[in-house]
Amino acid sequence: MSTAEIGLIGLGTMGAALALNIAEKGFDIAVWNRTGSVTKEFAAGAGDLADKITATDSLEDLVNAIAKPRSIILMVPAGKPVDDQIAALRPLLDKGDMIIDAGNANFHDTNRRDADTGDLAFLGMGVSGGEDGARHGPSIMGGGPKSAWDRVSHIMEAISAKHEGIPCATWMGEAGAGHFVKAVHNGIEYADMQMIAEVYGVMRDGMGKTPAEIAAVFDRWNEGPLQSYLTEISAKVSAAVDPATGTPMLDVILDAAGQKGTGRWTVIEAQHLAAPVPAMEAAVMARNLSSRVAERAAGEALFSAAPRMLPEGVMNIDELENALIAGKIVCYAQGFGLISAASDEFGWKLPLPEIAKVWRAGCIIRSTMLNDMAEALAEDGSRNLMHAPYFAELLKDSHWGLRATVAEAARYGLPAPALASGLAYFDMMRTGRSTANMIQAQRDFFGAHGFDRIDGHDGHHGPWGSHG
Amino acid sequence: MSTAEIGLIGLGTMGAALALNIAEKGFDIAVWNRTGSVTKEFAAGAGDLADKITATDSLEDLVNAIAKPRSIILMVPAGKPVDDQIAALRPLLDKGDMIIDAGNANFHDTNRRDADTGDLAFLGMGVSGGEDGARHGPSIMGGGPKSAWDRVSHIMEAISAKHEGIPCATWMGEAGAGHFVKAVHNGIEYADMQMIAEVYGVMRDGMGKTPAEIAAVFDRWNEGPLQSYLTEISAKVSAAVDPATGTPMLDVILDAAGQKGTGRWTVIEAQHLAAPVPAMEAAVMARNLSSRVAERAAGEALFSAAPRMLPEGVMNIDELENALIAGKIVCYAQGFGLISAASDEFGWKLPLPEIAKVWRAGCIIRSTMLNDMAEALAEDGSRNLMHAPYFAELLKDSHWGLRATVAEAARYGLPAPALASGLAYFDMMRTGRSTANMIQAQRDFFGAHGFDRIDGHDGHHGPWGSHG
Repeated sequence: MSTAEIGLIGLGTMGAALALNIAEKGFDIAVWNRTGSVTKEFAAGAGDLADKITATDSLEDLVNAIAKPRSIILMVPAGKPVDDQIAALRPLLDKGDMIIDAGNANFHDTNRRDADTGDLAFLGMGVSGGEDGARHGPSIMGGGPKSAWDRVSHIMEAISAKHEGIPCATWMGEAGAGHFVKAVHNGIEYADMQMIAEVYGVMRDGMGKTPAEIAAVFDRWNEGPLQSYLTEISAKVSAAVDPATGTPMLDVILDAAGQKGTGRWTVIEAQHLAAPVPAMEAAVMARNLSSRVAERAAGEALFSAAPRMLPEGVMNIDELENALIAGKIVCYAQGFGLISAASDEFGWKLPLPEIAKVWRAGCIIRSTMLNDMAEALAEDGSRNLMHAPYFAELLKDSHWGLRATVAEAARYGLPAPALASGLAYFDMMRTGRSTANMIQAQRDFFGAHGFDRIDGHDGHHGPWGSHG
Repeated sequence: MSTAEIGLIGLGTMGAALALNIAEKGFDIAVWNRTGSVTKEFAAGAGDLADKITATDSLEDLVNAIAKPRSIILMVPAGKPVDDQIAALRPLLDKGDMIIDAGNANFHDTNRRDADTGDLAFLGMGVSGGEDGARHGPSIMGGGPKSAWDRVSHIMEAISAKHEGIPCATWMGEAGAGHFVKAVHNGIEYADMQMIAEVYGVMRDGMGKTPAEIAAVFDRWNEGPLQSYLTEISAKVSAAVDPATGTPMLDVILDAAGQKGTGRWTVIEAQHLAAPVPAMEAAVMARNLSSRVAERAAGEALFSAAPRMLPEGVMNIDELENALIAGKIVCYAQGFGLISAASDEFGWKLPLPEIAKVWRAGCIIRSTMLNDMAEALAEDGSRNLMHAPYFAELLKDSHWGLRATVAEAARYGLPAPALASGLAYFDMMRTGRSTANMIQAQRDFFGAHGFDRIDGHDGHHGPWGSHG
């Protein structure tokens, strides 16, 4: 007993995959699950890795099986289950033992738990990559005391994905920093998926392409600047055929998107930080609206006379590719802008280039472009990502495609909220003289709020008095 | 002593205006301000109304000057000052006395205060209309126990704005219901102002129109379906000339918009309720981005090669008018959708037609169209406002203008985030078969989240296994 290097609680899909990954990398691991039969099944299915795994029947046995000072990973549902598990563990642990919450916690909860830990150590760790990532190499974003991270970083680096040999496991900062970065990852994931869905819609409804034809387009795009896991799997799901019916899979799947709420957390936090993330907001909106199936059908019955099919020659596939390239840059500019805002607000000093690096492999948003982003952010993390020379050039070439796509989608009734909001962000951020002077004038007119002037003269109210 | 029908604490701009309004309508009112000189100045400036006003020097004097059971309006800054004032008042009051928070409270605070009131009565009351409204007739949205509202409704109705003789003062529901409705009012106000600013930008930067020419356009629009206070004042501020320099006012005002945060509260709440309000989100974003003056200038230096001026004949003023008509309907559909969602979530039974009615006069978003909305909501408050016959017909006529505006703004680099998101909402809500099937396929591919099918067959995962 007391020989396992690390412990893990919660053998659901993600926890089981992570435990096998840890064992496979040569670390002795003790595991426990509240439902004992799950622990037994897990141990029975561990195959060659069984001798690295100590399956325990009780929380006490788990704690006793781990070498001191102990490190215990929690992979239980976010929220109350995490608090309950910490409360159950606390009396069994010794000073200096460490709890690692590897679930999808809201970073505010992680901040609170970090502050409440007493003489234990606490890490909040974002893990991205789904089941496959957890099993074979996820992207890992750690948060908490640096000294705590250093105690387990060799394990996290060993089990993480590698990008050209570099582990995708990084300490992001104190307290909730790791879970915050993971939340932004998920927000970007939402936006990226939505932009892909919008372009899919243009091809399907505007160009009349079949799923197989669309798959070929995504496959081709995956050879260029859009190379990414999400482009790759968009090709795969478009190409897939339902074994039961012979119909393309996409055509049998109900168009009502689910969500676990991490995208929503991210856009709420962005609002608190006054950090604009319109592409993420559009993605959350699109998921919300998709679930209103009956209301959409009523809308179609009323307004179906509006067009959808693009006339021949109005748009081409290269413009759509450029729309996604520009949209993606803008979306990441928003994401890194949000990270900067949080870093300032919470005093985290979040390492922007390292964040881009940790996302290069293992996680859902992994892509070639993230490598270029890491370089651009290393040059100067304080400027807007769109203004880095590499991305500025890419935007100069690609924004025309984004314009064409948003314009024709608007003209022909094909919804493209994320792409449209991305373009609006781009255009607002290249407008030295905006139209907020009108808003300031209105606010002063009805509320006497006053305004600043651009001409250095006195007088910060208009000649209209106050009229609410 | 003890003869005033009502008391008021806080003689800032809004409090003073409201007190004069109450006195003018014939009610005896006792007032107090923490800074005594403010109370004295107020009393000295009350003119003919002085004999209806009892200016008091202490909180005790104020309380003693009001007839029992007492009603006391607080008009102090939202947040801690309200809690502090309630705490200071509580020991001086008797069972059954009532506190009315008429400031811009977050409705969650109002819910909490309502629950904490003990044997006092508490109303949370949204008051819209700025200083002028408070003085001569605001729109009043009450929340709290109906019995408490009934005790003061004769005063609120007397001081409120009137629409064809009908008072714009209405009980919305329990606890924070009034402040919630006021928050949605402000969200709509943000969106409406932003859409106007976008159309102003198209005229200024895309068509080269002068402020005087733009004023003439708003004046003309104010004779048609867009008749509203905000259209009216847009004309006025566009026409105004700076007395000091002779320059059009709009051209001397810095384009960095301020905000007090009520728009942000509203979009955050909408996220919690999963109620899509993209036009409000776009408006908050635009205000946030407008303050990044240096970053926008850097963007202009990099990307100024993109166009802004519309070629002759590409767009016309009628299309812009229709864009605002359609955008406005869609924006209100979102606002009333948010109200419905809150009503369901909080069990408030918010009276949708009454809300439209209470906004018809006195408040910033007052407009002719709200009268038609009240009728449409009275017919059937459960359907999307866009689907009411009157507005469906208006949308069928006007969405083409919205399409043209969003399309050409995208093409020519004129930012129109609120109009674009409004159009995307409209198009998503008239799309029976959306593109969320792609998102569901991706989610199942990387996270084994599963999906529903449209063909009734079994099998809720794709033939791709799980690959995170």
